[in-house]
Amino acid sequence: CNLTGWWENDLGSRMLVSMVDNQGNFSGQYHTAVSSAQKPIEPSPLVGSQHLDEDGQCTFGFTVNWKKFSDSTAVFVGQCFAADSEEEVLQTSWLLREKVDSQSSDWKATR
Amino acid sequence: CNLTGWWENDLGSRMLVSMVDNQGNFSGQYHTAVSSAQKPIEPSPLVGSQHLDEDGQCTFGFTVNWKKFSDSTAVFVGQCFAADSEEEVLQTSWLLREKVDSQSSDWKATR
Amino acid sequence: CNLTGWWENDLGSRMLVSMVDNQGNFSGQYHTAVSSAQKPIEPSPLVGSQHLDEDGQCTFGFTVNWKKFSDSTAVFVGQCFAADSEEEVLQTSWLLREKVDSQSSDWKATR
Amino acid sequence: CNLTGWWENDLGSRMLVSMVDNQGNFSGQYHTAVSSAQKPIEPSPLVGSQHLDEDGQCTFGFTVNWKKFSDSTAVFVGQCFAADSEEEVLQTSWLLREKVDSQSSDWKATR
Repeated sequence: CNLTGWWENDLGSRMLVSMVDNQGNFSGQYHTAVSSAQKPIEPSPLVGSQHLDEDGQCTFGFTVNWKKFSDSTAVFVGQCFAADSEEEVLQTSWLLREKVDSQSSDWKATR
Repeated sequence: CNLTGWWENDLGSRMLVSMVDNQGNFSGQYHTAVSSAQKPIEPSPLVGSQHLDEDGQCTFGFTVNWKKFSDSTAVFVGQCFAADSEEEVLQTSWLLREKVDSQSSDWKATR
Repeated sequence: CNLTGWWENDLGSRMLVSMVDNQGNFSGQYHTAVSSAQKPIEPSPLVGSQHLDEDGQCTFGFTVNWKKFSDSTAVFVGQCFAADSEEEVLQTSWLLREKVDSQSSDWKATR
Repeated sequence: CNLTGWWENDLGSRMLVSMVDNQGNFSGQYHTAVSSAQKPIEPSPLVGSQHLDEDGQCTFGFTVNWKKFSDSTAVFVGQCFAADSEEEVLQTSWLLREKVDSQSSDWKATR
């Protein structure tokens, strides 16, 4: 699959992948529907990479830098599934790293 | 912190971040010490993003595309800790997405 | 909530919690719908513990020992949600620990 | 391995497994060294299950109910490694489920 375009998940978060280059690298924007930050949500830049397998079921990953409203960082990893004559579906998992004050709080920093 | 340079983890995996731009985006290479693929390990390209907080304890994330020897993708998320007069330390967590044949195998695809 | 009874998830796995004692401890059986083991699936014993909060939205956790057909162990953690006049819903996350030969393979043992 | 006895991890948390029965079920107490709750830490009951493989490298899992000071629940899953003439070592991973108000906050409830 080619990730270029808009994608939406169950929670209503949407992402726009604006371009996949011939190495599989891409950039775009992530519009999260959910946040634990106190500032208002804003679209955030993403960068990532995908495989370019010909069967259309490639794995991919990307990083979202919540620059403007949070000092956290999220990573997503997943795979594209391309059913016959149906829409392509992305299955993803994610980790959110929150900033903590010291290494002794590291244990609780990842959701 | 600025991630530019070489980093090594407990398992002996090493990464080289070759450049962090003024948006916090970076690229580099990841030399994993461990693999569940059958082909020999090769250095793999990474792309990611970091915060640029002035306290040197920024969070970051990156994606490794195991292009040449595996159809999996890995994502890492973490935080830099800069102890006084000591070396900077990175604390990271990761997810590895393996390619599966169909959505019904999705449950087991992420380590 | 009280977990006693049958529960089923999206993948078709079902569990029977046979009894919750006054400390919140419980036991039961888990009938998984999915497996990466080679032997046929069999019902497996589970043991766990739940909070007994009066608002019916308690958190809980349990361990499934795949005794008869796998040397892996799975843990589940989640929360009960009790919507007005609707069925109670469980939201859970899980980790599966596979047996590996040595500590050097530990990095890949958890899905 | 047999988990009966005291175990301590890198962060200084300790657990006492008081008894493993002939099915592999066990109970005990967990004394965490870290907490995000506001009340003082207290020893908390645990229940779990282990395999009884003869090679001493069994997998196991257990649930900790932070009864007295938190409405969260934690699960741990891991494997025992028994090096020749050295102490047995446990490798574990964990998930912590925090109580959230509603299903719409479910995404952030698991660390």
